[in-house]
Amino acid sequence: MDIIRSRRSIRRFLPDEVKQEDIEGILEAAMFAPSAGNQRPWEFIVVKNETRREQMSKAGPYSRPAAKAPVVILICGDSSRETHKNYWPVDCSAATENMLLEATARNLGSVWLGVYPRQERMEYLSHLFQLPEHIHPFAMVCIGYANEKPAARGFYDPSRVSWEEFGKKKA
Amino acid sequence: MDIIRSRRSIRRFLPDEVKQEDIEGILEAAMFAPSAGNQRPWEFIVVKNETRREQMSKAGPYSRPAAKAPVVILICGDSSRETHKNYWPVDCSAATENMLLEATARNLGSVWLGVYPRQERMEYLSHLFQLPEHIHPFAMVCIGYANEKPAARGFYDPSRVSWEEFGKKKA
Repeated sequence: MDIIRSRRSIRRFLPDEVKQEDIEGILEAAMFAPSAGNQRPWEFIVVKNETRREQMSKAGPYSRPAAKAPVVILICGDSSRETHKNYWPVDCSAATENMLLEATARNLGSVWLGVYPRQERMEYLSHLFQLPEHIHPFAMVCIGYANEKPAARGFYDPSRVSWEEFGKKKA
Repeated sequence: MDIIRSRRSIRRFLPDEVKQEDIEGILEAAMFAPSAGNQRPWEFIVVKNETRREQMSKAGPYSRPAAKAPVVILICGDSSRETHKNYWPVDCSAATENMLLEATARNLGSVWLGVYPRQERMEYLSHLFQLPEHIHPFAMVCIGYANEKPAARGFYDPSRVSWEEFGKKKA
């Protein structure tokens, strides 16, 4: 799939607004992710407000792009919806990856800013958004039109693949 | 993206063999996933052997499809490669989601069988494959031509989306 291979982490954005229809398409893609027992333990907060994004950009040492992206979506896990306990971070990861791919397919740049499992970042964002106890900040996805063209960083590495037995290389 | 929306969890497979080129394409897609600081903390074990798949299918209560799928890929995290500690499960989740999407794009069915964070499943698979301490079983992906057509389960749920503030609904 070309989209998987052409996705890049974009940290510089043009000021152009992101269409509402694209935002909703990206959220829809997230909600098409698989989840443990189809528990769908996710919540999304869409933020365009500049002051708020500036605050979000202080969540951690790599969160700066949130200040400049026209849209930042905070993905949270809702542990109260879990039928399969402690799978919410895994489920939210799959949803987040779908968001990046959907953004790419819509010609938008995006970057995944890690929050979970860093406790201090989670607490900072919980406090900022006054989240209830069962809502856990997982990641921030910055979205906008790209203002940079970073080189590809993904590649097939045969040394990471074993065949039948661990450590048995080559097909 | 149509692929994101047409993906289904497939648990019944035709006996037809999966092409080597498709297996490698799926692994390549996994390795195009983003990871924390691009640490790429993953290892993959491709299993076709029936006896071994039968053993894998006993890893947990939902692992049965591994016995019947022509190919099962065990995704593992390698904590020794981490520059961003404890992100390997998040990174492996994104890689696993890419595998399901790439399989879908290649007209193959697939299902994600959860292993991490269930300690007993991880230990069972670690023992089965005699993995070193730093290699952690994360998930099994079953791959093959689908022998069922389950209905779509993903959908856009506006009740899970807040705008600017948590709990503030509607755009």
